Amino acid sequence: MRAVIISEGRLTWGERPAPVPKAYELLVRVEAAGLNGADLLQRAGRYPPPAGVPADQPGLECAGTVEAVGDGAATFRPGDRVMGLVPGAGQAEWAVVHERLALPVPPERPLSEAGGFPEAYCTAHDALFTQAGLSVGDRVLVTGAAGGVGTAAVQLAAAAGAEVVASVRHEALRPKVARLGATCVAPEEVADHRPFDVVVDLVGGPGLSRHLGCLAPWGRVVVIGLGGGSQAQVDLSELLARRAVLRGSTLRSRTLEEKALVVQRVRHHVVPLFAAGKVRALVEATYPFPEAEAAYGRFAAGAKLGKVVLVRA
Amino acid sequence: MRAVIISEGRLTWGERPAPVPKAYELLVRVEAAGLNGADLLQRAGRYPPPAGVPADQPGLECAGTVEAVGDGAATFRPGDRVMGLVPGAGQAEWAVVHERLALPVPPERPLSEAGGFPEAYCTAHDALFTQAGLSVGDRVLVTGAAGGVGTAAVQLAAAAGAEVVASVRHEALRPKVARLGATCVAPEEVADHRPFDVVVDLVGGPGLSRHLGCLAPWGRVVVIGLGGGSQAQVDLSELLARRAVLRGSTLRSRTLEEKALVVQRVRHHVVPLFAAGKVRALVEATYPFPEAEAAYGRFAAGAKLGKVVLVRA
Repeated sequence: MRAVIISEGRLTWGERPAPVPKAYELLVRVEAAGLNGADLLQRAGRYPPPAGVPADQPGLECAGTVEAVGDGAATFRPGDRVMGLVPGAGQAEWAVVHERLALPVPPERPLSEAGGFPEAYCTAHDALFTQAGLSVGDRVLVTGAAGGVGTAAVQLAAAAGAEVVASVRHEALRPKVARLGATCVAPEEVADHRPFDVVVDLVGGPGLSRHLGCLAPWGRVVVIGLGGGSQAQVDLSELLARRAVLRGSTLRSRTLEEKALVVQRVRHHVVPLFAAGKVRALVEATYPFPEAEAAYGRFAAGAKLGKVVLVRA
Repeated sequence: MRAVIISEGRLTWGERPAPVPKAYELLVRVEAAGLNGADLLQRAGRYPPPAGVPADQPGLECAGTVEAVGDGAATFRPGDRVMGLVPGAGQAEWAVVHERLALPVPPERPLSEAGGFPEAYCTAHDALFTQAGLSVGDRVLVTGAAGGVGTAAVQLAAAAGAEVVASVRHEALRPKVARLGATCVAPEEVADHRPFDVVVDLVGGPGLSRHLGCLAPWGRVVVIGLGGGSQAQVDLSELLARRAVLRGSTLRSRTLEEKALVVQRVRHHVVPLFAAGKVRALVEATYPFPEAEAAYGRFAAGAKLGKVVLVRA
């Protein structure tokens, strides 16, 4: 089969043996595979994949049709449309997906959109609900809200009855993010909209200290992106006075069991909203698999609304 | 009645009207009242008490005998021995304690010890169990472990089946803290004993960044003291990689309802251990009420094991 392959920092559409599903795994004919920040880090040699995953095959999510199932797999059957998380090698003609990390694709949604759904919605749902304990009526700030996870978080928080403020650096994207259900502002204007019960921070870096000062009592900050840097100065007295929580989270480093819990929550709570069109996986651009280099370039350029997705040509 | 009074930064044993219990309040003849760091800040004019509490009467906890009860109070009766949290003015011959913030003093324990129990055990229990979700088998670090909250946290964590590492700056106190059920080390040696599932940090300041590097996956840090300073540099990538949580907590700024929840948890889970002698309120020194100035001086001098408690002469 053909797969996106990292070769000396460049991407090629090269030949690799097709994967074979082991117990509880699905062999998926991939139709679409979203890009994530970790793919770009992996291409740059700065995000080694877990043991057993080839370092030169990127891709953390995909959508397609089940072709075959491994021993014991009972949740999906050949012919089912699925989308799911993979530890790597998702940007290829074929991929294996553990059945507990796979979600059904509602018949109403195209596979090209589904290819950009799993990482964004699993990350956003876990951050908002499991990590931050979002409740109806909470006031939520999503920073860096125009990207894949950000647009998912805005839609999920709005769907849950929260009041959503979204900060977006690129002015042209703000009206588009606002239409997802948020008050969309420039990063410098965030403090005008405090206090926040929950902050989902996709930027990190020095801006974090400003956000801590905008929290309500018992406020929760979940940092899940570090595009703005990893070093932050924290005034602990602001945490103490508010009984506030600062947490960091990633999906990729979790165990299979932990990821499966996240995926199964998304299956029960989010896939029905996706089927009904109440939340969408926004796709800024699709590229055929062989044009992975151009797709990664588009991702790196930023200023995009939602995901960049590779699709079968 | 007589009460400890702050007058131009000094403490006197002066005259004040005796308090009158309002609905759901207990009038307590105070036998003992522990000192807390906030009392010293209040004396220095740096910790204004909540609305309705006199700024010149310190004292956040006391123990004694119920003399009378306000309308509706149904939990305690005159003659009962109680200990409890008060928003201020606890260091006086008489104090009013809300019945939901009062705990029974087990007959086995002297009131002089009980006067140092409520703040330390409510703070430690809330930090370990409610904030950090301590479980049996967790590995816990308590920093600044020799003080009132620290010795309470060490004993509670050990009683809950955790493995406890305690850091104590003063070498002479380390064997005494170790006898409470901890491996007791110097602050510089903490990293040798990682990874920690829970850190209860009573020091704050620059040392915090070192502790974040010592966390296990899903590790939780609760900062409840800032003797080492309030500014901390945080490497967010360490939080993300571990899915770690950093939280700050204080009791004093909480609402009555929130404090009542903490006190009632302590009533059910800790007072029985206190009655059985499985946890103790360690008292470094007692001083008669009129010697409050000397007691505050002893507290400020540090290098103490447990509490400093004022007692009826």
